[in-house]
Amino acid sequence: MTRIALALVHHPVLDRAGSAVTTAITNLDLHDIARSARTYGVPDFFVVHPIAAQRLLAERIREHWVTGSGKQRIPDRAEALALLRVVSAMDDVYTALAGDAGRGGVELWTTAASSRSGSLTAYHDARERLAASARPVLITFGTGWGLARDLVDDADVRLAPICAGADTGYNHLSVRAACAITLDRLLG
Amino acid sequence: MTRIALALVHHPVLDRAGSAVTTAITNLDLHDIARSARTYGVPDFFVVHPIAAQRLLAERIREHWVTGSGKQRIPDRAEALALLRVVSAMDDVYTALAGDAGRGGVELWTTAASSRSGSLTAYHDARERLAASARPVLITFGTGWGLARDLVDDADVRLAPICAGADTGYNHLSVRAACAITLDRLLG
Repeated sequence: MTRIALALVHHPVLDRAGSAVTTAITNLDLHDIARSARTYGVPDFFVVHPIAAQRLLAERIREHWVTGSGKQRIPDRAEALALLRVVSAMDDVYTALAGDAGRGGVELWTTAASSRSGSLTAYHDARERLAASARPVLITFGTGWGLARDLVDDADVRLAPICAGADTGYNHLSVRAACAITLDRLLG
Repeated sequence: MTRIALALVHHPVLDRAGSAVTTAITNLDLHDIARSARTYGVPDFFVVHPIAAQRLLAERIREHWVTGSGKQRIPDRAEALALLRVVSAMDDVYTALAGDAGRGGVELWTTAASSRSGSLTAYHDARERLAASARPVLITFGTGWGLARDLVDDADVRLAPICAGADTGYNHLSVRAACAITLDRLLG
């Protein structure tokens, strides 16, 4: 079985105007993506944020649900939020997954709502590639208006945008919804 | 094309202990499900809540994004939240979809995370049934610990729980994630 990990990236991501920015952590992103990861058997969910106070917030949310009073109230949630790993940069994710090999030891996949990047991989092909990968596969999701160009350019696989069957002329899923659909298409 | 509608039900739903309760509205439920509905071409998203103050809250959220200052900031969001229809009970949903025919004029589908209800319909079969339905199809999602028994018993179709490919022993998706996956499986 290929090792699979998710990363929710808060920097570098784009704002509406296409500039690289840092976004704030959204509590329900952590819950929803952790729950989806746990449901589909993905063992690692990295939250990438360069600001210490924001990482502390994420750690406190994790603690509340994994060992604190949240666990008493909703025990199931502990199993999901235990997957959460809070790091400051993508390099930390690569090291966590591949040790000294770093970026070279990881197969980096990006997701996007638009098809501006060339050479996109359809879900059907991605599913096969996922099963065959010798390296751990890291599937990244951007907050804000999506992952910054440098990260997308560095990817080994750029997943095609999620496409509704009919042409509805609209493709603005939340990152929580997009992550759920991506996991279902790749692993469901 | 079959007319499809979604309903997010806050009453009657279950609590942890299996009692029928009323849950509070969650802001991001409205956003995420509206965005998923719009992306997949579903024209109606009903929010069902028996308490007037909670309906007012939902109406204000809708107004903020459809005609208020939210629309200036994120114009795409207006198109999604314009699908939102806030009603007090399931009967209002039936009347909105089928007029005087009411419940009899609607094909009622329920979703659930567990398979406690018998005669479940797999997604593959549901997809065919959806395309062939002469009546509008209403797909309902429960908040809290899921839809109350009476509603599930009344359903024409009970969708099978979303099943991850491998047996991961965990099935606690958020309603936002479950709705996104359901739409992708039925319409994607």
